[in-house]
Amino acid sequence: MTPQDVRSLRPAKARELFRDGLRTPTAGWCRGWTQANLLAVPRALAYDLLLFAQRNPKSCPVLDVGDPGEHRTGIFAGDLRTDLPGYRVYENGVPVAEVADVRDVWRADLVPFLIGCSFTFEDALIQAGVPIRHIDQGVNVPMYVTSVPCRPAGGLSGPMVVSMRPVPAALVATAIRVTSRYPALHGAPVHAGDPAEIGVTDLHRPDFGDPVEVGPGEIPLFWACGVTPQAAVMASGVPFAIGHLPGHMAITDVRDHHFQVP
Amino acid sequence: MTPQDVRSLRPAKARELFRDGLRTPTAGWCRGWTQANLLAVPRALAYDLLLFAQRNPKSCPVLDVGDPGEHRTGIFAGDLRTDLPGYRVYENGVPVAEVADVRDVWRADLVPFLIGCSFTFEDALIQAGVPIRHIDQGVNVPMYVTSVPCRPAGGLSGPMVVSMRPVPAALVATAIRVTSRYPALHGAPVHAGDPAEIGVTDLHRPDFGDPVEVGPGEIPLFWACGVTPQAAVMASGVPFAIGHLPGHMAITDVRDHHFQVP
Repeated sequence: MTPQDVRSLRPAKARELFRDGLRTPTAGWCRGWTQANLLAVPRALAYDLLLFAQRNPKSCPVLDVGDPGEHRTGIFAGDLRTDLPGYRVYENGVPVAEVADVRDVWRADLVPFLIGCSFTFEDALIQAGVPIRHIDQGVNVPMYVTSVPCRPAGGLSGPMVVSMRPVPAALVATAIRVTSRYPALHGAPVHAGDPAEIGVTDLHRPDFGDPVEVGPGEIPLFWACGVTPQAAVMASGVPFAIGHLPGHMAITDVRDHHFQVP
Repeated sequence: MTPQDVRSLRPAKARELFRDGLRTPTAGWCRGWTQANLLAVPRALAYDLLLFAQRNPKSCPVLDVGDPGEHRTGIFAGDLRTDLPGYRVYENGVPVAEVADVRDVWRADLVPFLIGCSFTFEDALIQAGVPIRHIDQGVNVPMYVTSVPCRPAGGLSGPMVVSMRPVPAALVATAIRVTSRYPALHGAPVHAGDPAEIGVTDLHRPDFGDPVEVGPGEIPLFWACGVTPQAAVMASGVPFAIGHLPGHMAITDVRDHHFQVP
């Protein structure tokens, strides 16, 4: 399918393709629909995760939380165990599998969290004239583990993860203004410019996703990223969790406008 | 003290007065500082309460959550057991005491939640020319239990509680615009006009606080209220909880501007 094809798909159709085995980053998919990070943890850990999210709202804006064992939520009419284009399974903080289907490891006590994703505001950036490099290059967005600590909650702690988009200097203000309007999808950038200031040493070697070119006259902008709670799962040695494969998101049934503030 | 006196007090000084026994509603106190609702529940109930708040963000915007047994938090440098001007203690969902000090009933497993309060934006309303009737009358704000159900979470369910301010018709748009900028303090009203539409049958008989006059040409505006989780404690028969006396708030050390969005 062409970028134009995937851009105009409805969420249910995209989820069907993922359920049938298509593995792809979801940037540029289903224009106008909200994308979300998935993290499912056992009920015994759910309070720590919800409090971690409350204490770190830039990186962990909670869109919805399912009840234990549920594999759909009010904003996601598909099956959270099959309808994402990729999953990571964690044991004791270590990613032990990257799979296309987690039905065999889903547990009755798992609480699914859906957390806002910055892919959602990329269409608004494009409409405002801000190019999105990873979409233009047809790759996954670059994501980096920073040296910025999150505020801990119970047994959960870890560093903030960011996504990066290079933006022409003259469009930096536009990019900040546009994304500020989506606080539930990470909102405005957390950092602009020198990556070393947030502990990122080499833009060409992202911790997740793919590198993209930063051209002359472009400023790298860094947005808090919903992979942050997965970094906390790893840093904290959480016994069991299921997340999405970074960049391979849950495409929800909620319009992006729903999360736009004036 | 005059209204002008209490308006210009610093939070620490107000808390000292409350600690020394002054019992008063806090509308109009400590201009420029954020006021908050308190609800402390046992750790075993904390997930349900945090999820209830996440699912009902208009009435339960969480400003901060302490760790179990803590009686101060990052945004409140006083003692949550003594520094509010009034408390309500609940057993099995029933208010069993209204007291000035809860040190003797505070428990090591209690998790204190601080939830945004609409008193915080009243100064911005006054600056914008919107009169605040309960301040002018020197009484507590009227609060009503509505027929609007909250979205349940675990064992917690109950109706939305609202506060009411009568606003001259020509200033309704201003009041909505101004309060929209404070989503963490309940934001824009949830209802305007006919109280019967949200199940409020008699404005002269509020469920909490005092009645105020609604003049000719004024529209009653209703804001979601942070007493809502206390209504859920009552409706759900929660074994034990401590809340503030409605209208008698925790005055925090955070500026109201901190919670203002563009």
